Amino acid sequence: MQATTTGLQQKLQQLIINKTKPLGALGRLEELALQIGLVQQTEQPVISHPHIIVFAGDHGIAKTGLVNAYPQEVTAQMVLNFLQGGAAINVFCRQHALALKVVDAGVNFNFSGYDDVVDAKIGFGTGNYLTGSAMSLAEAEQAIEKGKQIVAQTAAGGCNCIGFGEMGIGNTSSATLIMSAITGIPVPECAGRGAGLSDEQLIRKINTLEEVYRKHRLDQLMHEPLALLSAVGGFEIAMMAGAYLEAVRQHMVVVVDGFIATAAFLVANALHGASLAAHCIFAHTSEEPGHEKLLRYLNARPLLNLGMRLGEGTGAALAMPLIRSAVHFLNEMASFDSAGVSKGR
Amino acid sequence: MQATTTGLQQKLQQLIINKTKPLGALGRLEELALQIGLVQQTEQPVISHPHIIVFAGDHGIAKTGLVNAYPQEVTAQMVLNFLQGGAAINVFCRQHALALKVVDAGVNFNFSGYDDVVDAKIGFGTGNYLTGSAMSLAEAEQAIEKGKQIVAQTAAGGCNCIGFGEMGIGNTSSATLIMSAITGIPVPECAGRGAGLSDEQLIRKINTLEEVYRKHRLDQLMHEPLALLSAVGGFEIAMMAGAYLEAVRQHMVVVVDGFIATAAFLVANALHGASLAAHCIFAHTSEEPGHEKLLRYLNARPLLNLGMRLGEGTGAALAMPLIRSAVHFLNEMASFDSAGVSKGR
Repeated sequence: MQATTTGLQQKLQQLIINKTKPLGALGRLEELALQIGLVQQTEQPVISHPHIIVFAGDHGIAKTGLVNAYPQEVTAQMVLNFLQGGAAINVFCRQHALALKVVDAGVNFNFSGYDDVVDAKIGFGTGNYLTGSAMSLAEAEQAIEKGKQIVAQTAAGGCNCIGFGEMGIGNTSSATLIMSAITGIPVPECAGRGAGLSDEQLIRKINTLEEVYRKHRLDQLMHEPLALLSAVGGFEIAMMAGAYLEAVRQHMVVVVDGFIATAAFLVANALHGASLAAHCIFAHTSEEPGHEKLLRYLNARPLLNLGMRLGEGTGAALAMPLIRSAVHFLNEMASFDSAGVSKGR
Repeated sequence: MQATTTGLQQKLQQLIINKTKPLGALGRLEELALQIGLVQQTEQPVISHPHIIVFAGDHGIAKTGLVNAYPQEVTAQMVLNFLQGGAAINVFCRQHALALKVVDAGVNFNFSGYDDVVDAKIGFGTGNYLTGSAMSLAEAEQAIEKGKQIVAQTAAGGCNCIGFGEMGIGNTSSATLIMSAITGIPVPECAGRGAGLSDEQLIRKINTLEEVYRKHRLDQLMHEPLALLSAVGGFEIAMMAGAYLEAVRQHMVVVVDGFIATAAFLVANALHGASLAAHCIFAHTSEEPGHEKLLRYLNARPLLNLGMRLGEGTGAALAMPLIRSAVHFLNEMASFDSAGVSKGR
């Protein structure tokens, strides 16, 4: 936050202090209210037309079966499930009146004729990074640009609060490699079971990803986000990185979901050249073990810890009512003066 | 749960397993869905007319100023704030469409003429337990009975999910003494700053409560909940204990709020002679330090940890959307078969 916001910050803090409750008694909600007021540059923030945008993409590596418990086809099958309203993210978006956009960032399926899918296809899945690059540099840039455009359109429709989800069989592997490259934390500490690998399968995943790490010299790419995306990224991850950049530029309240979404956030920070965290609310800690380490690396304190590891933006969706609660208490609670309540000593 | 529910439990588990998500990927929500199904004895649970009931009562000890940061008058002032819709619990109940009942369990104020207060007054505040008993045994029984009646009436109106909150200056002291007596954890480990004591005030509170503990021989009252309430209880705590008993008897989904609400839950367990936990969802971990220890004693895993310490049922209200999410995913998500999604290996 700039120095010019100091006055606003003090005003918000005073408003929060004067609400009819013991000092600090609303805990994290008080921090959220302050943050959202600063993001929106107002003492009376509002959450308008909140959205979840799910970016779906396939990963060449998933065809090998070396890193994934589910076959690649499940990405497209789950996109169709999103369209039919049967997935967890549909349920939670309905519950919380969140608009849901499903984006084909690069699924290995032809969605022509499916009008409810936002067509941003970069390709029919990435290349297998065991044998080549996941995508070209141009494709990485194109995906980032598409992500920006989609968020810009969403903002133009009146949305000021947005969470990003993903679907992509194999994408915990891409996220693991990105996390390891940018944070310097070794691959075995970043990797996890994804959608449900056995012990043996997890070992094979780690061995595979360590080989990929060496092959693409990821240790050289800490500050090279485009090259990193090209080497081991996913179309949905690259697009989400662009989406973060535009959402922050638009002064949106940005809700960061789980492991893959946080890896994309790392990429966005690297592209931006500075942390975007002031605009971001970290929704939850995923059960995918790399996520907790990644959150710690970012000094992020997520709102929820429910042992979830589903993706799709489900953690972001479940955090939305808490974000609204923060805004509501700031706008609606009485002050000690207005309610005639005596203050403490 | 009885053995007769085993079939239902298996059916619920199978339903949850077959939803279009990796096994266990909804974490705590899956446990909640199972629990709620078992409480309601159905594969299709519903949350109907959820309520928050706030029990308010005053404490004689608060007149001494030895344990409290706010004057006793604040209890009544906050009840009036509840009636005007200006407190945090009003905000969160409006947000989540929760009905709110405010009960005068024993506030030192005459609410005649305030039709929106449920009149269950046992007295104008408890006695000061530094010099005598908080209440008579008959008053403790009367409060428990009133709590049962209020919940029975609420259930008769179609409510099947209920959370209890409280308001009462000085009531963290009563809760501390109850917790210490029933759990055997020493008073200094149970006590905290309540609404905001300084270091010096906290030491005085602990010294005062240790004196009360010895005077009333609370070490003898671990299994004597009525005598314990009589010695150091609060009208709102006794009434809430009765409310838990009736809510469980009515097969309601019961949401346990913070430190004082959990102390009342201890009393209810003692009155019942067995744990009521199978019917209860623990909403959050309060910042009042005794609460975490109390939850650990109960092997309870709360849903939220937001650094809150406000009471009023605010933690319970904020947990309601997660409870609804559990029910919604169970009822609304597609199965692998119905959505045509391939299963993992």
